[in-house]
Amino acid sequence: MTKKPSILVTNDDGIHAKGLRELVEVMKLFGRVDVISSEVAMSGKGCGITVDQPLRAIPVEEIHGVPTYKCNGTPVDSVKLSFNDLLDYTPDFVVSGINHGTNSSISVIYSGTMGAAIEACLHGVPAIGFSLDDYSPEADFSKAKIVVAKVFQNVLDNGLAPYTCLNVNIPKGKPKGIKICRQTHGKWVEEFEKRIDPHGREYHWLSGYFKNFEEDATETDIYALKNNFASIVPVKVDMTCYKSMEELKNWTF
Amino acid sequence: MTKKPSILVTNDDGIHAKGLRELVEVMKLFGRVDVISSEVAMSGKGCGITVDQPLRAIPVEEIHGVPTYKCNGTPVDSVKLSFNDLLDYTPDFVVSGINHGTNSSISVIYSGTMGAAIEACLHGVPAIGFSLDDYSPEADFSKAKIVVAKVFQNVLDNGLAPYTCLNVNIPKGKPKGIKICRQTHGKWVEEFEKRIDPHGREYHWLSGYFKNFEEDATETDIYALKNNFASIVPVKVDMTCYKSMEELKNWTF
Repeated sequence: MTKKPSILVTNDDGIHAKGLRELVEVMKLFGRVDVISSEVAMSGKGCGITVDQPLRAIPVEEIHGVPTYKCNGTPVDSVKLSFNDLLDYTPDFVVSGINHGTNSSISVIYSGTMGAAIEACLHGVPAIGFSLDDYSPEADFSKAKIVVAKVFQNVLDNGLAPYTCLNVNIPKGKPKGIKICRQTHGKWVEEFEKRIDPHGREYHWLSGYFKNFEEDATETDIYALKNNFASIVPVKVDMTCYKSMEELKNWTF
Repeated sequence: MTKKPSILVTNDDGIHAKGLRELVEVMKLFGRVDVISSEVAMSGKGCGITVDQPLRAIPVEEIHGVPTYKCNGTPVDSVKLSFNDLLDYTPDFVVSGINHGTNSSISVIYSGTMGAAIEACLHGVPAIGFSLDDYSPEADFSKAKIVVAKVFQNVLDNGLAPYTCLNVNIPKGKPKGIKICRQTHGKWVEEFEKRIDPHGREYHWLSGYFKNFEEDATETDIYALKNNFASIVPVKVDMTCYKSMEELKNWTF
């Protein structure tokens, strides 16, 4: 690639998130940048799309001097709308984040950050979701930005396999290095907090903790993070369980 | 399994959808049934969860004489809330649908029907999402219900591999049979419809058509549907691209 690449930056923490601004700053070192983000936080929206509401995207104040739009839809909506309407070109890359909080293991399916990256790679655009293990709105991204630059440089140099994207998670503080990992096998154990509203009606807040089914598996993303390494999991959009396919062929109908 | 199994039925078309009622009717033949569904349609919510709003689930009028709850969250929220709070047992199976409209190919990642099934299997509960190729609210499910019964009987007899679920799509009319398939490689090509609201502001409606990248691949779910077969794709929750992992290990940081 001789000319500077075009990069669409998005996230799921909303247009005002610090992580978005930090990511824009890094990406400007590499190419032409446009930004689109949701007007409100869209954490947990996964690959959700909006089919029952009209979508709007309007230009807002530039972030670090690059054109910026806010959208009323999900991160996936933002990518779809950018590709089809807002941008007059298809970007060479989509980067999403830097998320305030990790999206390792099974969180890949709940994450709006990764939803945007997955959507982009479905359209053949190489994409990366970046997340930092720090939920604070004022998180320190200085070390994470170095990881972002290193990973992006490798994607520039080596490309990605078609229809794959990267799920990059970065520990708090200074990482010891960067590891290529697989998705950890685990689940969120919910602990709904039950409360009573002022009108006497019950409601629940979703909360919980992560249960790792394979704490000692050194090749997993959570193992890397626990040991202060940044993790890169290549993600593909084919969810077929090929092994099960063979077993199911013995079923009788 | 000697005693009758317990089955949680859910969907993403909302509590009043015909497909939900039809599914309950079939499942009652097999075991004890509880129902939870969203109070409004949740199509396109994928694996989305609700982190910024309290969740409520309240008992409503029974469907075909079985306990029924409506929830204000996504299909994934409904499954989480059922497992953790509403039910005093973990169900043996979760079935989701019957969706009004297909969820074949890449729609698996956008589908709330499949979101519920994926969530259940993450918790180790065998799960199936059923979808009929008919978007009409008054769709005829009579033939689809035979497929549902046949597939469920096989799951009862043979079980499913841990942490997998099934994505079952059923053609309109009488299917020629049932095929075990893989996820078709394709994408939605969006065609946002641009309109102007009464206040002069632009808005967009998401619409589009499906682009099949492998129309002649006989082992894919869309090929099966096009040829009037019901398709079963076993779905797993590990999105790691293992092939890419090996390539990425040559990257330098």
